[in-house]
Amino acid sequence: MASPEIETLTQALSRLPGLGPRSARRAVLHLLKKRESALDPLLRALEAVSERLATCSICGNVDTSDPCAVCADPRRDTRQLCVVEEVADLWALERSRLFPGKFHVLGGKLSALDGVRPEDLAIDSLVTRIAAGGVDEVVLAMNATLEGQTTAHYIAERLEGYPVRLTQLAHGLPVGGELDYLDEGTLAQALRARRPVA
Amino acid sequence: MASPEIETLTQALSRLPGLGPRSARRAVLHLLKKRESALDPLLRALEAVSERLATCSICGNVDTSDPCAVCADPRRDTRQLCVVEEVADLWALERSRLFPGKFHVLGGKLSALDGVRPEDLAIDSLVTRIAAGGVDEVVLAMNATLEGQTTAHYIAERLEGYPVRLTQLAHGLPVGGELDYLDEGTLAQALRARRPVA
Ligand SMILES: [Zn+2]
Ligand SMILES: [Zn+2]
Repeated sequence: MASPEIETLTQALSRLPGLGPRSARRAVLHLLKKRESALDPLLRALEAVSERLATCSICGNVDTSDPCAVCADPRRDTRQLCVVEEVADLWALERSRLFPGKFHVLGGKLSALDGVRPEDLAIDSLVTRIAAGGVDEVVLAMNATLEGQTTAHYIAERLEGYPVRLTQLAHGLPVGGELDYLDEGTLAQALRARRPVA
Repeated sequence: MASPEIETLTQALSRLPGLGPRSARRAVLHLLKKRESALDPLLRALEAVSERLATCSICGNVDTSDPCAVCADPRRDTRQLCVVEEVADLWALERSRLFPGKFHVLGGKLSALDGVRPEDLAIDSLVTRIAAGGVDEVVLAMNATLEGQTTAHYIAERLEGYPVRLTQLAHGLPVGGELDYLDEGTLAQALRARRPVA
């Protein structure tokens, strides 16, 4: 039916999270019908991001610069470091504008089931950042899942002996809940009531 | 939080139908994390479509060529012409692969409420196509809405006196239903049981 170019575009869109084949088709149709107001702006935005896309060599965030905007921001409190599983979690916390410090993205969580070991995550680089000094508090902002908490405990062990205060998000988090899906109110409460790791 | 480039991309995606701000953010994050498998293919697909995007001067379809692939296909039955309100309806019928003929896209429906008059739709060009001869049957595949049916009646009047058989989709269509949302089974039944316009 549609030309190969349109078919390829539909497939590329349908592979995005939250877009199935049907919604991808509707999105493509919208793009084709609204060239000036939809297709061209999206194209230019993708080009701009693609040209400058980088993974931050300090924290693991993805951004259009390295270091990322958070790491490069001189107003951030370098004494507080928030460790998260995924870039999505960093973005969720940033949207809430509640955490004034810096971040460290692990790139996942320890999982015996999925065969994810400590060396598969950015844990050594976290220890190196802490060992370099200047950080007073490490917030272990893992998801409230079994694997998230296992990861937090493992990191707490690895950071033993360093002069940092370890905290974790208060259990305002619904059990089994994932950070990235939380409303900002819950996230705010969990962050305000964060407590030392036992 | 995010760089201006990422913010702009998020906004461009969030304006697509079916994608709100939250799903747009998740889509952007996916694109940033999967450069080779998601961002670059989407960028190339948009470029390819943007370079060649055209509105078909014969039928009003949008495609990457003019005439569109349907109009240019020599295997289509030129004696059957299906009139639809929107390009989305043409695409829905094409997906079902049930209609062997050609199409004519009106670009909307008559609506006193929205001030859409006959001259705002591609009705004159439809009459011209019919007057040119070679068409035996015109399928008026308007939506089963009041405005869709009003449009069908108006077109039937305009085509009076031409040696064509006017048919419309059988009322397998749910009342108030829109073509583009129908499952293929219903669409197939409605097309098979199409009947002459009374
Ligand atoms: Zn960074
Ligand atoms: Zn055409």
